Amino acid sequence: MTGPEIDRLIQLLARLPGLGPRSARRAALHLLKRREALMLPLAEALSLAATRVGDCGLCGNLDTSDPCAICADPARDKSLICVVEEVADLWALERAGVFRGRYHVLGGTLSALDGIGPDDLRIGPLVARAGADEVREVILATGATVDGQTTAHYVTDRLKASGVEVSRLAHGVPVGGELDYLDDGTLATALKARRPF
Amino acid sequence: MTGPEIDRLIQLLARLPGLGPRSARRAALHLLKRREALMLPLAEALSLAATRVGDCGLCGNLDTSDPCAICADPARDKSLICVVEEVADLWALERAGVFRGRYHVLGGTLSALDGIGPDDLRIGPLVARAGADEVREVILATGATVDGQTTAHYVTDRLKASGVEVSRLAHGVPVGGELDYLDDGTLATALKARRPF
Repeated sequence: MTGPEIDRLIQLLARLPGLGPRSARRAALHLLKRREALMLPLAEALSLAATRVGDCGLCGNLDTSDPCAICADPARDKSLICVVEEVADLWALERAGVFRGRYHVLGGTLSALDGIGPDDLRIGPLVARAGADEVREVILATGATVDGQTTAHYVTDRLKASGVEVSRLAHGVPVGGELDYLDDGTLATALKARRPF
Repeated sequence: MTGPEIDRLIQLLARLPGLGPRSARRAALHLLKRREALMLPLAEALSLAATRVGDCGLCGNLDTSDPCAICADPARDKSLICVVEEVADLWALERAGVFRGRYHVLGGTLSALDGIGPDDLRIGPLVARAGADEVREVILATGATVDGQTTAHYVTDRLKASGVEVSRLAHGVPVGGELDYLDDGTLATALKARRPF
């Protein structure tokens, strides 16, 4: 139908999350209409990010520098480590701007189904970091899913020897949430973890 | 939050149709995890398509050759020209594989609201093409929208002098469509254009 260049572009765009074959075609046409303004800058941004951005050797965050900007920031509280599953979770916490410590990205969750064991995650480096004198508390911010909580329990066990304090995010009714729409699990957790008003 | 390279990548990805800021972040992370397999090939495909693909001087289709593969195909019926609004419409007809003539891409529709007049579309070149001896029929395949039909009427007027036959796509009940879900306009058109069974 079209030349191999356009076909290949559509195929690659269709592999992005959120784009299917139809929206990839639409995106390709959108790009071809804006060659100078969007298409070439995007090509450049992609290859630049692909070559320059790497994993932070300390926390696993993505950045152009190693250690990353967060680990290297002297204003960050070195006594707090927040453990997250993925870089996306780290970004979410940074957008909220509510945490001033440092992070540790596990790179996923333990999952028997997908064959992901402790050695596939960055748990060993976390235990090593938590053993340092300056670290006082490790906050587990893995997801409130079965896999996320299994991982949190496993990490807690592994951290016991280091004697560091381990906490996890509170579970309960999300701010702005209506009780009517919440699932039984969330309601039960919120009730059990009720606090004096 | 992240380095300028990642921020710029997310900004550019968010300008693709179908992607917003959140899905652009997801796409950027997806790409950064698949640098060799997806990110660099996509960067290359983008710059390759941006430099090699151009408009066909004859019909306005996008292709690496000028005239495009369809215009240059000797097996295509030169006596038929199908007029479409955009390259996406041409692609849709080619995917259906039901038309063996050649195309003419207008590049949009007349629109008083958006200030798009006849000189902004490829109507002049269409009139010139229709004047050639070999062209027998021009099929108007603009959308069944107000702007699409206005454009079709205007193009018909402009083509009168050339004496070429002008037709348009049939309007009616879409194949697989249930009457219950159709709008009044489509039902009225389908009833008026009824045919012997």
